[in-house]
Amino acid sequence: MRILVTAGPTREAIDPVRFLSNRSSGRMGYAIAQALRDCGHEVVLVSGPVQLAAPEGVELHSVESAREMLAASLDVWSDCDALFAVAAVADFRPKQCSAEKLKRGQGQGTVLELVPNPDIVATLAQQKRRRLVVGFALESHHGRAEALRKMKDKFLDFVALNGPQAQGATRSKLLLLSADGSEQVIGPACKGQVARELVQGVLEPNAPTA
Amino acid sequence: MRILVTAGPTREAIDPVRFLSNRSSGRMGYAIAQALRDCGHEVVLVSGPVQLAAPEGVELHSVESAREMLAASLDVWSDCDALFAVAAVADFRPKQCSAEKLKRGQGQGTVLELVPNPDIVATLAQQKRRRLVVGFALESHHGRAEALRKMKDKFLDFVALNGPQAQGATRSKLLLLSADGSEQVIGPACKGQVARELVQGVLEPNAPTA
Repeated sequence: MRILVTAGPTREAIDPVRFLSNRSSGRMGYAIAQALRDCGHEVVLVSGPVQLAAPEGVELHSVESAREMLAASLDVWSDCDALFAVAAVADFRPKQCSAEKLKRGQGQGTVLELVPNPDIVATLAQQKRRRLVVGFALESHHGRAEALRKMKDKFLDFVALNGPQAQGATRSKLLLLSADGSEQVIGPACKGQVARELVQGVLEPNAPTA
Repeated sequence: MRILVTAGPTREAIDPVRFLSNRSSGRMGYAIAQALRDCGHEVVLVSGPVQLAAPEGVELHSVESAREMLAASLDVWSDCDALFAVAAVADFRPKQCSAEKLKRGQGQGTVLELVPNPDIVATLAQQKRRRLVVGFALESHHGRAEALRKMKDKFLDFVALNGPQAQGATRSKLLLLSADGSEQVIGPACKGQVARELVQGVLEPNAPTA
């Protein structure tokens, strides 16, 4: 299969130097890209700014903002058979990006107006037809209920749920929820191992666990 | 001498996963720390989150937010003889850091209330007595006038002025302005070379240029 993986954070520019972002390191997305490649799949990796080298043989598209990530993903999605949406996409971006660096005021505060970013996994899943879509949910509270709501609202086949402590870490633990109602705990283990079990749980759900 | 160097960006938390930051890689600050060490000085490096190893023999204090950077810097400043304030400190931070991850709303925007961060170089320079303080200015417009204003308002001995294109880059070009009115263009060159010339220009202003 040809599989699209999104990974890493997005950066949403406030001005030429400042941005909004998040703690995603891209490690889980890159580990999933590698696990998919190791299973013989063709992988297209659309990645936000991270400090990682793309696994050899993977087609890398580097982007910065959520809108760039959506555009790059839409470009390749029509040729892909499945999507693993692992990127930690910023839900909001500054309403305006100032061309000049904003100046420190005279002691007063200020407000940053934020507007919603496009929902990348939901947008791609709207065009899924019979293709497989796996989403990720990072939730600090009420995780399971939120993950199930996301799966239903966004037409996902699987949602992998983890907590904020996963971001930037080398180890991870996931709860893999399937649209058919089944659940699988994966890890805690290094992200490479978690990625391999996740790929197996999604692509060969009836195979015996490694 | 024992010299305090601040380096890198700061990160200002919005919630457990999101933050405000900037494009500083920390390279110039780390290059200055290394150049000072190579000249035989004792270096204390207070650094925001970067992807760099501290030069060997340098005392590293890792911090994340501007307030942490100020606290760590104040802790060591009384024992230091000079300050190179190279860090790209966030001028503003979110008024509140949410303990829970903020949820994507139903399509509406939102505002992020920002409050000013402490001005680290100004705070340290207020306690400078006869010590040397070098500041950095990153300006997209009216750079020289802004840099001169900063030098005067904050009681700095030197200001190194550069533009937004310096952030994250490996090469740099600076205009070094001195409180005595002299000026020196440094670079364009790799940041290591720029750092060496800057250190020489500040600590041995009358020596012949390398």
